[in-house]
Amino acid sequence: MANTATTTLDFWFDFASTYSYPVAVRIRPLAAEAGVKVRFRPFLLGPIFKAQGWDTSPFNLYPAKGRYMVRDCEREAAANGLTFRLPEPFPQNTLLAARVAVGGLEDGWGEEFSRALYRAQFAEGRQVGDPQVIGEIVNALGQDGAAALARAGGDDIKQKLRANTEEAQRLGIFGAPSFIAGVELFWGNDRLEQALRAARD
Amino acid sequence: MANTATTTLDFWFDFASTYSYPVAVRIRPLAAEAGVKVRFRPFLLGPIFKAQGWDTSPFNLYPAKGRYMVRDCEREAAANGLTFRLPEPFPQNTLLAARVAVGGLEDGWGEEFSRALYRAQFAEGRQVGDPQVIGEIVNALGQDGAAALARAGGDDIKQKLRANTEEAQRLGIFGAPSFIAGVELFWGNDRLEQALRAARD
Repeated sequence: MANTATTTLDFWFDFASTYSYPVAVRIRPLAAEAGVKVRFRPFLLGPIFKAQGWDTSPFNLYPAKGRYMVRDCEREAAANGLTFRLPEPFPQNTLLAARVAVGGLEDGWGEEFSRALYRAQFAEGRQVGDPQVIGEIVNALGQDGAAALARAGGDDIKQKLRANTEEAQRLGIFGAPSFIAGVELFWGNDRLEQALRAARD
Repeated sequence: MANTATTTLDFWFDFASTYSYPVAVRIRPLAAEAGVKVRFRPFLLGPIFKAQGWDTSPFNLYPAKGRYMVRDCEREAAANGLTFRLPEPFPQNTLLAARVAVGGLEDGWGEEFSRALYRAQFAEGRQVGDPQVIGEIVNALGQDGAAALARAGGDDIKQKLRANTEEAQRLGIFGAPSFIAGVELFWGNDRLEQALRAARD
């Protein structure tokens, strides 16, 4: 008999988060194996970083740490059979992509879009803040890019993304990727397996 | 035939670093298994954090992150059969302990001292900035606490710790625990196994 998932693991991500890229790739097969339900929860790190006094990515604020993180992301990507490159500029503006993801998740293609967006940004170095690039990525999934972009500009989607970000803040989320299993918060690609165990138990 | 270690893994730590505690406990058996030589390299995070614009631990600067890290440290400790508690106040002043470690490492008891100091601080919540506590920890190893403290106050040891910190900065180290294997830098308890593989290969 197949495992019956009783708990949902929430995967909170911002498209500008480098370490969320391997999670977006890894989480589905691992969750299936563990019998855990997963929800993709896009949010914006910007307001959360701002509340911490940061006006850009910690990669940029702390250069030694930033250089290390690029190398570490390369090694982590390689360990998962992926490639990694930091896009120029970094971070990209990921607001529109996050709004498209909110709509896509409601329509059933948001996870696939999220993985494709991460790959475009961090493997191919594409300009994922550009509406045309986002539209092409949606089209390549067999969906309607123009319709997705139009919907992303609507108040309904804007409000939903804002609500996600506020919920993330209330949950004590301070970075991405983050996972919520019950009342437990986990942070980082390194904690995915542990978060899945917590969700299953 | 036993493995012949060709590369040395440098383990850079500050006694105030919570995530260095599980490393101090784990590194010897794992390095023996991997056939890798290890050097314990005490240094001070203070000047490095200061250069990043921080006047205290990131635990304190970013409260949401700080709360998470305490919970994460508890979970990591439990996974290694250890207990974890944050000492009051945090961070403790670890300058004297670092100087004692520099002397102890030259005399062959520095690793054991490091593990005992971490345990006293993060499992027992002791005041490890207090010379008397440090002396007791050295005595408990069967060494001469008073002599170790006297030596730690000498210019030779002070200069060696300062040189370690400057070397760490030159190596691009921005936090602890850090590992250097050849030219590769690794950061965090989570990267110990990877660092050992890099040192071995």
